[in-house]
Amino acid sequence: MSFFRSRWIDAPPHVREVPEGGLPAGFRAAAAHAGIKEGSEGLDVGLLVSDPQDTVSAARFTASGVLAAPVLVTRERCDLANIRVVAANSGNANAATGGPGMDEAARTQGAAAMVGGAREDQVAVASTGVIGVQLDGKKVSKGLLEASRALRIDGDADFAQAIMTTDAFEKRATLAVDLPSGTVTLSAQAKGAGMISPKFATMLCFVQTDAALAPETADLLLGVTVKRSFDRISVDGQLSTNDTVILMASGASGVRVAPESEDELRFGEALDALLRQLALDIVRDGEGARRVGRVVVRGGNGDGVDRVARAIADSPLVKTALYGADPNWGRIAQSIGGALPGTAPLAFDITIEGTLVCSGGFGIPVDLAKVEEAVRRDEVEFEIALPGDGFETEVFFSDLGHEYVVINAEYTT
Amino acid sequence: MSFFRSRWIDAPPHVREVPEGGLPAGFRAAAAHAGIKEGSEGLDVGLLVSDPQDTVSAARFTASGVLAAPVLVTRERCDLANIRVVAANSGNANAATGGPGMDEAARTQGAAAMVGGAREDQVAVASTGVIGVQLDGKKVSKGLLEASRALRIDGDADFAQAIMTTDAFEKRATLAVDLPSGTVTLSAQAKGAGMISPKFATMLCFVQTDAALAPETADLLLGVTVKRSFDRISVDGQLSTNDTVILMASGASGVRVAPESEDELRFGEALDALLRQLALDIVRDGEGARRVGRVVVRGGNGDGVDRVARAIADSPLVKTALYGADPNWGRIAQSIGGALPGTAPLAFDITIEGTLVCSGGFGIPVDLAKVEEAVRRDEVEFEIALPGDGFETEVFFSDLGHEYVVINAEYTT
Repeated sequence: MSFFRSRWIDAPPHVREVPEGGLPAGFRAAAAHAGIKEGSEGLDVGLLVSDPQDTVSAARFTASGVLAAPVLVTRERCDLANIRVVAANSGNANAATGGPGMDEAARTQGAAAMVGGAREDQVAVASTGVIGVQLDGKKVSKGLLEASRALRIDGDADFAQAIMTTDAFEKRATLAVDLPSGTVTLSAQAKGAGMISPKFATMLCFVQTDAALAPETADLLLGVTVKRSFDRISVDGQLSTNDTVILMASGASGVRVAPESEDELRFGEALDALLRQLALDIVRDGEGARRVGRVVVRGGNGDGVDRVARAIADSPLVKTALYGADPNWGRIAQSIGGALPGTAPLAFDITIEGTLVCSGGFGIPVDLAKVEEAVRRDEVEFEIALPGDGFETEVFFSDLGHEYVVINAEYTT
Repeated sequence: MSFFRSRWIDAPPHVREVPEGGLPAGFRAAAAHAGIKEGSEGLDVGLLVSDPQDTVSAARFTASGVLAAPVLVTRERCDLANIRVVAANSGNANAATGGPGMDEAARTQGAAAMVGGAREDQVAVASTGVIGVQLDGKKVSKGLLEASRALRIDGDADFAQAIMTTDAFEKRATLAVDLPSGTVTLSAQAKGAGMISPKFATMLCFVQTDAALAPETADLLLGVTVKRSFDRISVDGQLSTNDTVILMASGASGVRVAPESEDELRFGEALDALLRQLALDIVRDGEGARRVGRVVVRGGNGDGVDRVARAIADSPLVKTALYGADPNWGRIAQSIGGALPGTAPLAFDITIEGTLVCSGGFGIPVDLAKVEEAVRRDEVEFEIALPGDGFETEVFFSDLGHEYVVINAEYTT
């Protein structure tokens, strides 16, 4: 199976990849070149439609205090449990664009409703790209009209391409999921190479299924799986203005996923594996990343466990060490201390790829060659034990190297 | 005047640099090569002594939850208001070294007391260097003995060199300060090229004066000026395990700085300018920094103002843009949003070198050539206005470029 590449993601046995891709029954998608990405001939406007009027959906957005216009429009003018159409563009984030930006996002929503055959409050809009530049909504509308003429069940590849910015590779999958009540299809298209990228911001992810879900089920499953995937990654620790994840269920398979059923459990496992692999793909694509780290933190204080995991994942010193394949755990000790001020003396353990290197807060003799060998691989795992127990969390993170500097410093606007 | 190089630091008119350097009356210092810095022939142990028994002092330490042994020993076994001797080493931070590390720090304290002619509780110890490796206290003791034989009033240059690690240049100054009651001398030696450096950690700063200060005055002045200097800088946002700042007043000039006097005001101004320039020197030396940024944030919420300033200063996206001389204020907008989740829609202004580029949360037309020219200079100023007023803060920060990656990733341990 080529999609579930990471040893950290368990592909459930009832999930099969559909190598040829495609959308679940009830969905159609397409894309167009609208000229929004300056100097690019590529696709930059995508349209996704779920035909059944009673499509069920759920959504999650960035927590940033600076919200892009499409996030505001979708959050406030949309029935988030009944999204039938997604209109997305790349090349311009439509963020920090004020009233005019809101007008353009609303214009996009209106145009997508018209060409997609939906009410305006059934249309979600999403943008990704440069912040602080006005979006030309007329170009987007024109692109949506063009895309609407090409809508098809295998339009997911074009749609995925239309939302890419600095992404080095496509992030999408189509899965067949065997549930006790029948087989359903689950597909997703994501983009992101940093929590925020150089000029082009954001992570977006659109998920489709032909299973029939109640709105509460869709919301519950999306909430839990986003917390375990896109909430647990860091490229540069920078929260975007545009992050959007939307799950849509057309119900066209006729297979109903009832609350608290075995179907729900199995569907949730499939969604979980799908979103976790996509999240990991974003980290792996993280602006020139050479290798990916996973930090697992355990301890008796839930807040402390989370803060330590994020501090390690966000530390430029830990990230550069990962890039350089340097098993310098002193930088991890420093991150722990920085995340938990005032707790000294703190007893903590650090384990790198199964080798305990620091016990009770100080270094112990280790087989350095073994650790050095382990940190040279593509995926490196760090485990931290803080005092107490009962809480555990993980964060996936990219390294920090020359390519990050090249992408972020040398390609000036 | 060569020391006060930055336009952001106002050298008070009653302060003159003493170009030849040297320590204030009552102080002597020296350094030795003790072989702690592996593969280096340089000085790595420094000894500083204030001869008067009634020397007054004050100290500040890192807030990290992982404290180095010398920080714990100094904080807990020292009369912080009567420090007469400083024993410092570079090449090993003696952090995450457990009980054995505590023993070595105590051994250093004992040796320095003996050779410096002081009680053990009058000796501060400080270390900087690699974390998690045991320090050989015998080497340090031998170095202290050698240094004690060379103690002299112009030993500040050697002492400053002995505490350097990855520092690209020396950070020290000697100032003559004219107070209404007479002229006093103020000197300082600092090190630091990152809040924490690659293998060699920490910022240290030792300040001496021959003015006579009450312990309360020393503590008050050091507290205020550290908050305005070393607390307001970021190279990589990483809190060290070893940060130490110590102010010592020998009183040997006979000039007394009384509480709430004009003397205190003027002395405080001199100390403030001295520490701010040294803090700025640390940022300028920040692991290959090309240019230095200053962000000033104003608004009605003190906590929010501080969080926004630090978020901007710590953002790898803002830092790489500074490195690339890219006036991409969208990244600053993104940082503001990330620091203030849940506040959207947020009205904020961004001004770059006097040019308003974003007003009320969205971009306005600007003379881009003028802004592009401004961000190419050595020092770049960003002003952020958040809603409300009453609070203002600043943070100085370095950029993030290839040299940072080289220093932190390519020189592996």
